[in-house]
Amino acid sequence: MKKIFLSILYCTAFVPVSSQDMDSAYIKMIYNKALREQQSYGWLEELCLDIGHRLSGSPQAERAVKWADSLMRALKFNVYRQECMVPFWSRGPKEQAWIVTRDNKIEVPILALGGSVATPPEGIKAKIVEVKSFDELDVLGKTGQVRGKIVFFNKIMDPAYINPFEAYGEAVRYRWEGAMRAARHGAAAVVVRSMTTAIDDFPHTGSMGYNDTTLKIPACAISTRAAETLSKFRIGNPDLEFHFIQQPKSGPDVKSYNVIGEIKGTEKPDEIIVVGGHLDSWDVGHGAHDNGTGCVQAIEALHLLKSLNIPLKRTVRVVMFMNEENGGRGGAKFAELARKNKEKIIAAIESDAGGHTPRGFSFKGDARKIEKAMRFRNYFTPYLADLWGPGYGGADINHLEDLGTLLIGFRPDSQRYFDYHHSQNDTFDKVHPRELALGSASMAALIYLLSQYGVE
Amino acid sequence: MKKIFLSILYCTAFVPVSSQDMDSAYIKMIYNKALREQQSYGWLEELCLDIGHRLSGSPQAERAVKWADSLMRALKFNVYRQECMVPFWSRGPKEQAWIVTRDNKIEVPILALGGSVATPPEGIKAKIVEVKSFDELDVLGKTGQVRGKIVFFNKIMDPAYINPFEAYGEAVRYRWEGAMRAARHGAAAVVVRSMTTAIDDFPHTGSMGYNDTTLKIPACAISTRAAETLSKFRIGNPDLEFHFIQQPKSGPDVKSYNVIGEIKGTEKPDEIIVVGGHLDSWDVGHGAHDNGTGCVQAIEALHLLKSLNIPLKRTVRVVMFMNEENGGRGGAKFAELARKNKEKIIAAIESDAGGHTPRGFSFKGDARKIEKAMRFRNYFTPYLADLWGPGYGGADINHLEDLGTLLIGFRPDSQRYFDYHHSQNDTFDKVHPRELALGSASMAALIYLLSQYGVE
Repeated sequence: MKKIFLSILYCTAFVPVSSQDMDSAYIKMIYNKALREQQSYGWLEELCLDIGHRLSGSPQAERAVKWADSLMRALKFNVYRQECMVPFWSRGPKEQAWIVTRDNKIEVPILALGGSVATPPEGIKAKIVEVKSFDELDVLGKTGQVRGKIVFFNKIMDPAYINPFEAYGEAVRYRWEGAMRAARHGAAAVVVRSMTTAIDDFPHTGSMGYNDTTLKIPACAISTRAAETLSKFRIGNPDLEFHFIQQPKSGPDVKSYNVIGEIKGTEKPDEIIVVGGHLDSWDVGHGAHDNGTGCVQAIEALHLLKSLNIPLKRTVRVVMFMNEENGGRGGAKFAELARKNKEKIIAAIESDAGGHTPRGFSFKGDARKIEKAMRFRNYFTPYLADLWGPGYGGADINHLEDLGTLLIGFRPDSQRYFDYHHSQNDTFDKVHPRELALGSASMAALIYLLSQYGVE
Repeated sequence: MKKIFLSILYCTAFVPVSSQDMDSAYIKMIYNKALREQQSYGWLEELCLDIGHRLSGSPQAERAVKWADSLMRALKFNVYRQECMVPFWSRGPKEQAWIVTRDNKIEVPILALGGSVATPPEGIKAKIVEVKSFDELDVLGKTGQVRGKIVFFNKIMDPAYINPFEAYGEAVRYRWEGAMRAARHGAAAVVVRSMTTAIDDFPHTGSMGYNDTTLKIPACAISTRAAETLSKFRIGNPDLEFHFIQQPKSGPDVKSYNVIGEIKGTEKPDEIIVVGGHLDSWDVGHGAHDNGTGCVQAIEALHLLKSLNIPLKRTVRVVMFMNEENGGRGGAKFAELARKNKEKIIAAIESDAGGHTPRGFSFKGDARKIEKAMRFRNYFTPYLADLWGPGYGGADINHLEDLGTLLIGFRPDSQRYFDYHHSQNDTFDKVHPRELALGSASMAALIYLLSQYGVE
């Protein structure tokens, strides 16, 4: 590395090369290499097809930890792990569900929501109360119409949002709070319409919550197509019942790890730039877009910089966070240790919005730091990735907010993301190699600039 | 329409609604309706699955003409056709090709290039000369090393271009000129590496050219994976031969049509805005992205404006161009008639770059007109479609350049486009409904602004 660095310095003594031109040249090198010699797609294939989905606490998650560890060692990063305890929850046998009318019994696809309790072995069979909001639920609950019934939250993710994450943000509370809210009114269970704008047969799981003041009732997600069927069948079928069986189990916490690969900075090694994705996934599909892509992009970003001998003044730390999906313990542990060790994590980039074509980055943190980072934006215009602005960081890195870290969310095109998210449909074949590589390159370019100039 | 228009005018007499606010409101209405009540995806399904691929002059192209005609009549556009003669070329029985070594014969996937002559019934079997450029070909040709051989143009589409259309522009001359150039040196035939950055088993066809001064020799496209195999096998196999059989036929021109659907402008009906795609496709796959998507987006754009009663001061003309792929006769005929009838076509938008997420538009024509149109750009920022600038129009609308028309190319994300282009792989399932609808809405919004304000 030193040799190239010195030769460039040497050149600049004679030829007027501005630092801006040099930065542009490095960034061009990064994109060229990512597109011509991409490795992330092969790594993702290993993670998705050899290991598969990998819920925290599962044997597959353990294998993913070992895989990430040995991959980053092979790339000559300084690799270590951070132990963290993660919740144990296991889906058990395949769920079953039926819409039951007087004359008919129609099987429909469901998935237990993550963290849900089991139904009795024979399942729960009860009449349906369909609502589209908590207000509707409360109105019905007050007149006793919810007691003993299954509450069907049929909130549609509004397709009119240009950014589907906004529609998700609006609808996902029914998944998270549904069981708690329905239990207050004496409901027997809840069925939640899957969080996607696609109308298809994939139920989408995801975390749900309980509290200590209400009964824990079973909660499942139903595919959007089945949700539409259920809603239609209710009309004219006052006796309609819903019947579902799910047998998930919870258990004591299990030991797991964040896996970290690092390259020390040459001038300011104490200033750290984090780049990461989460290694765990839901327990269906391959966890390809959520979030295999983020993992391999973070690893490839540092590998690009290292293999191109691009000078890094500040330390770059790749973090494979554990347990983003159902607890966030890895992210919390990482922040806890950073605080304990008085580390100066100046910026953290998270790729957890899928592996589609990059559009830009969103920034959260101190306004002056955001302003400084925003000055890098023009470098990304030739790469069509200059949609930059204040916004969300990421579920794992958000734990660093109190440390003054500038939080940066990688923002790819997201029109297709919720077709896959948390479902059987999130498979390797849904990822496009060029789109993935462009993400790795965008992240590498931003890391380079942050490492070169800091955020102060 | 009048009623809404008047009520808005009425409102503005009392409430200070700027025309900019009103334009924004209309554009919001357009996007909302496109995303919530999309019809283009269903239309595309009909075109792709009921009709399928539709090379000009084929019975399927004739069916597509009738389909477009009756769809636009059902939508209450003023529908008419423009007759044009198109070339007749038919692929014949499935091509066959083999790499032949002393010990082995490996079958590889090829497609005759569009317009190519046939091989003799037993095929052409000859040694291979591999080149990556015309310069290499000329060097070998001058020393007689090309005579009697099959020239293998193995030019790779450079994956480092951020916009794959640039890589295509660089590589496609080997498909178009290859046979002419190789024939000059006495080659027996040419095999051209498919125009895609994907490494897979789909050969990609497309137009090739002949001239009157050189012999017409057969030309085919080979899949990229087979191209890599062929290139590797040559090393250490000096006796390697390539053998291929293709039996396409050409015939006299056939009658076909552009199909046009129009809504007259209320204030300046003589000023016309054209929006179109091409109805024909290559004779493999479904012609989904190339260019079913462009057709249904153009139709949906006008349908959105009409069904929302959005006022259109200038005339909007949806054109389903015929024969873009192998002759451009429809585009030429449209321009010829526009000139003959002294029509004032102020702007023409073409969607022929696939149906992926919109990024923006490119403009070609008079600098002042471009400058005026560029002022609309900010309206598209909330819809993430504001990548605007001077650039390419479209193969069909480019014929209008001499008439002073402002040419506008719809620019979607194009990372995946060349995986599908001109191949068996360009099927309906590769199109995403949201991405498609966003394109319809972007085009409708731009048409509205052009219709409201013109380009002068």
